[in-house]
Amino acid sequence: MNEKSPFANHSLRPYPTIFRNPNEEYHRMTTLLNVNASAQTEERSITRRLTQNFIDSFVSVCPAAQVVERDLGRCPPPFVNAKFIEAAFTPADDRAEWMIEKLSVSDHLIDEVIRSDVIVLGAPMYNYGMPAALKAWFDQIARIGRTFSFDLVRGDHPIRPMLSGKKLVVLSSRGEFGFEPGGIRASSNALDPAIAACAHYLGAEREEIETVAVEYQEFKDERHRRSLEAGLNQTVEIARRLATSA
Amino acid sequence: MNEKSPFANHSLRPYPTIFRNPNEEYHRMTTLLNVNASAQTEERSITRRLTQNFIDSFVSVCPAAQVVERDLGRCPPPFVNAKFIEAAFTPADDRAEWMIEKLSVSDHLIDEVIRSDVIVLGAPMYNYGMPAALKAWFDQIARIGRTFSFDLVRGDHPIRPMLSGKKLVVLSSRGEFGFEPGGIRASSNALDPAIAACAHYLGAEREEIETVAVEYQEFKDERHRRSLEAGLNQTVEIARRLATSA
Repeated sequence: MNEKSPFANHSLRPYPTIFRNPNEEYHRMTTLLNVNASAQTEERSITRRLTQNFIDSFVSVCPAAQVVERDLGRCPPPFVNAKFIEAAFTPADDRAEWMIEKLSVSDHLIDEVIRSDVIVLGAPMYNYGMPAALKAWFDQIARIGRTFSFDLVRGDHPIRPMLSGKKLVVLSSRGEFGFEPGGIRASSNALDPAIAACAHYLGAEREEIETVAVEYQEFKDERHRRSLEAGLNQTVEIARRLATSA
Repeated sequence: MNEKSPFANHSLRPYPTIFRNPNEEYHRMTTLLNVNASAQTEERSITRRLTQNFIDSFVSVCPAAQVVERDLGRCPPPFVNAKFIEAAFTPADDRAEWMIEKLSVSDHLIDEVIRSDVIVLGAPMYNYGMPAALKAWFDQIARIGRTFSFDLVRGDHPIRPMLSGKKLVVLSSRGEFGFEPGGIRASSNALDPAIAACAHYLGAEREEIETVAVEYQEFKDERHRRSLEAGLNQTVEIARRLATSA
């Protein structure tokens, strides 16, 4: 690791894979990856409440489901830097020890994606876009040779995703409102398009992303109460539907 | 600071304000804030080359300009966390010592924005959006009572920017191409809309952002060579124009 980096103390230590239902008797269980990007605690985070509801509903239908927790809000991944890029673009067989170490968090986070069937993203809108910790996660996941391949023989579309078949559910919260297509703040929605653009790294189809968005949080009014209630109901509906088909 | 945070060692130490032309004899100089978000070194970064060209051109027309360097690629700001949010939403007069400390990096970065007249953002497209370090910077800059005010008496538009009159220049680089409006990858451009949505925190008008985008970097072909040449020329043109009117 780069000694000058403020993240020189990053290691896999804060990145254990946390299983909530490690039921080893099932040969092939559905695995949920629950990614929480909220910087807030459970008591204050709407998206953490939504993801919790999703998991509870999913597991109630599909008790054998395995749940993997990835808490980006509490343990943000390191930022990519020049050394990371150098390591990532060195062929796997040619990597020095430091390169393998430099990519270890990325490899770990990618392994969690690979083993998952359903990815539930608790993604609050921060300043109109992703929380920086969520973008840092995507920057760790987007890896040549692991989540995408690159070949100029493909012409103007040299990038091809390597993963497929995952369901992506985005559970979001916004302080304001009107971020849906056609809404008064649609042009300021830099969250949903950013997730859609990166969905292929997760093996998900951008057209099939299921999104729940609770709005009006800063207004603390009846509109917010209704939006939260609708969002919770929608979350439960999606969870049950996916669990039934799992 | 939160002892459990992997960024507990964050302090202002890696955040000195670096002046490149500290010419104190001018009473009111134009100040350029040069923000570099590339994770790459100077030799490999197109956006660092563009920002360098911008500054050289600006200073050649306006030698009294003061340049402030903010290198997010080398020294990414901390991620916001629950403690940061608690501190930011506590009225300034009521803040405990730990809150003042928790906001010190944010205050420092905001001071740099406030003192600037022109903000030059070296913003490569990483996985279709901002580098996470750039989003972390915006999340530090978006501060109630410093860069925006919030009041529900304003009805459905409670947020009002507190800064104004800054010019924002975005110098970008993309591995692929076609991210312009109407381009084949326009719907995957999660970088320019995200910057536009946050421009008001910097005191810039989103309609007046000047953007240069070098494309085709991953293709390493003649199209890339031409795009880089055009981007460098465009950068010099914008710098001279802004320096002349400064």
